[in-house]
Amino acid sequence: MIIKGELKGEFMKKILITGISGFVGGHFVHYLTTHHNNLEIHGISRSKPAWDFVNIPPRLLNVHHFHKADLNDIPRIKLLIEEIQPDYILHLAAQSSVAESWKTPVFSFLNNTNIFLNIIDTVRLNDNAARVLSIGSSEQYGIVPENDLPITEDRPQCPENPYAVARVAQEHLARIYAKGYDLDICCTRSFNHCGPGQTDRFVVSAIVKQFVKIAKGIQKPVINIGNGAIVRDFVDVHDVVDAYNLLLTKGKKGEVYNICSGQGRAIKDIITVLSEMLRIRVEVHQEQSQIRPIDNPRIIGSYKKIQRDLGWEPTIPFEQSLKSIYKYWDQRLQDESKMLSGNTL
Amino acid sequence: MIIKGELKGEFMKKILITGISGFVGGHFVHYLTTHHNNLEIHGISRSKPAWDFVNIPPRLLNVHHFHKADLNDIPRIKLLIEEIQPDYILHLAAQSSVAESWKTPVFSFLNNTNIFLNIIDTVRLNDNAARVLSIGSSEQYGIVPENDLPITEDRPQCPENPYAVARVAQEHLARIYAKGYDLDICCTRSFNHCGPGQTDRFVVSAIVKQFVKIAKGIQKPVINIGNGAIVRDFVDVHDVVDAYNLLLTKGKKGEVYNICSGQGRAIKDIITVLSEMLRIRVEVHQEQSQIRPIDNPRIIGSYKKIQRDLGWEPTIPFEQSLKSIYKYWDQRLQDESKMLSGNTL
Repeated sequence: MIIKGELKGEFMKKILITGISGFVGGHFVHYLTTHHNNLEIHGISRSKPAWDFVNIPPRLLNVHHFHKADLNDIPRIKLLIEEIQPDYILHLAAQSSVAESWKTPVFSFLNNTNIFLNIIDTVRLNDNAARVLSIGSSEQYGIVPENDLPITEDRPQCPENPYAVARVAQEHLARIYAKGYDLDICCTRSFNHCGPGQTDRFVVSAIVKQFVKIAKGIQKPVINIGNGAIVRDFVDVHDVVDAYNLLLTKGKKGEVYNICSGQGRAIKDIITVLSEMLRIRVEVHQEQSQIRPIDNPRIIGSYKKIQRDLGWEPTIPFEQSLKSIYKYWDQRLQDESKMLSGNTL
Repeated sequence: MIIKGELKGEFMKKILITGISGFVGGHFVHYLTTHHNNLEIHGISRSKPAWDFVNIPPRLLNVHHFHKADLNDIPRIKLLIEEIQPDYILHLAAQSSVAESWKTPVFSFLNNTNIFLNIIDTVRLNDNAARVLSIGSSEQYGIVPENDLPITEDRPQCPENPYAVARVAQEHLARIYAKGYDLDICCTRSFNHCGPGQTDRFVVSAIVKQFVKIAKGIQKPVINIGNGAIVRDFVDVHDVVDAYNLLLTKGKKGEVYNICSGQGRAIKDIITVLSEMLRIRVEVHQEQSQIRPIDNPRIIGSYKKIQRDLGWEPTIPFEQSLKSIYKYWDQRLQDESKMLSGNTL
């Protein structure tokens, strides 16, 4: 295996990425391989990466070590972290769907709070000086009055769903480990992501996928959604990984940073934008089964803190995100259709 | 087995007490057997009760069903709750030591937050209409400025140790389950307990035990403590179980209640009170190893809410608590000494 840093005689730093096989994991690895050449990348996930949304030439993956593991398997995680001795840990692994967390709250809690605790407690016991980036969520804020938008980091947290509770607990643990055990942890409260490769369990991806199917004539011109009135702040995954890279290297220890676009968009307005952009007329059908027991009407964040401290700001317009997501689903459904019709044989 | 309610032809309600084998569990069972005669008592714990501090005649324990189980064994808990179909669940099971939580934070989290979540999620899935009392802690508040004492329930929570984080997460989950799934849950934030039978891992019990040993001449007149300057609000366990009984039957769904004495006492002042009460002069030695990474200097609660809503207030003077704890340790050390010297053979 060629380790590029060694070839250059540089000191080779190691990064461990949990949940590497996911949507953000793929984009972050893509970011690292195009922006850094002195990092040994280790990834942990329950399943091997099968990213179909980033193009990474295989030779650039030489520094990539994949470890198949369940983060609730504490002895295995201990062994891995002891062996790797990472300089950085980007903890992306999460069960990050609010809707799923209402269906399986125990699973959601185990696969958010507990897995994070297992990681940082291993770092503590191992006396490993790794810099840890803990990913949190805008859901931690709960329901915020209109006058208090956009939300800043000093706002008290009032989680309103099982996923949000798990994320609040994770952040409290991060704070305690930074303050009480002197671990080098920095936290985000990341707002809704969008971008190519996100599963259609998330709303923007689900809507765009339906538009692609309508355009291909394989779905009637009806868009099925949950609550169309709720407003969320969507930030492009490419901007997100840029922020994560900055925070891993320069974020202040023990601090929490919003990562958001600063713009609120109602779900039904996203449908209007797509409808006009693609010149496709659609009806909207709100599925009762997708309405959640409690839902935040409006979530809009402020990115002033990370802008002030690290100079980060969102750069990708929402329409550009929608286009790249459209392109992704268009290609993917074409590939699937080819496979089904046997054209690839 | 004689079920007393049945004999009387009354409708027999069932209560499930988790962590029944513990300190509060024993006192609560004692309370129930002396105050209620129409309750079928089920208890869950990892170990059988061996209370040496409450006198319950065995015939009164006829209604007591003990189930040995680990609350993290989800299939077993499901089966038990399905079988028992409790009307009330008093969830006492907890790893409730702040000091231990700094040493084994993962264990503390699993045995506070996760076990509670397992219980309430089983109630949810089982569609069981049980009234649940979730026990929380004054530690949830974190460090509170002097001017804001005594602490009322509307104060934002800022947990400062792993145990407190676990309790905050537990309460958030209770709130989500009450609001989002319509479960009948009521919460406490219980302040420091004292009373006969508490282990010497807790400060008042540890201090009184040392005084008993000094009085018996088996310890030098030096009291070993951690940080003597911290102030806590100690409420007698007999008052606590009285409050739990009231909250189980009359507490408002989804609400949180402080249970406290309203009085703050510095640890070193407790030593002074005992020294004067027992006329034993002691030196105080602060053990550095017992000082915690972060500690709240002063915790004093307000019990106005539970007083207003349910008429509860603390009734047992602190000096009376100290006397009963002294009597407990005196008896227990005497019994242990007899056993060691073979006098009981």
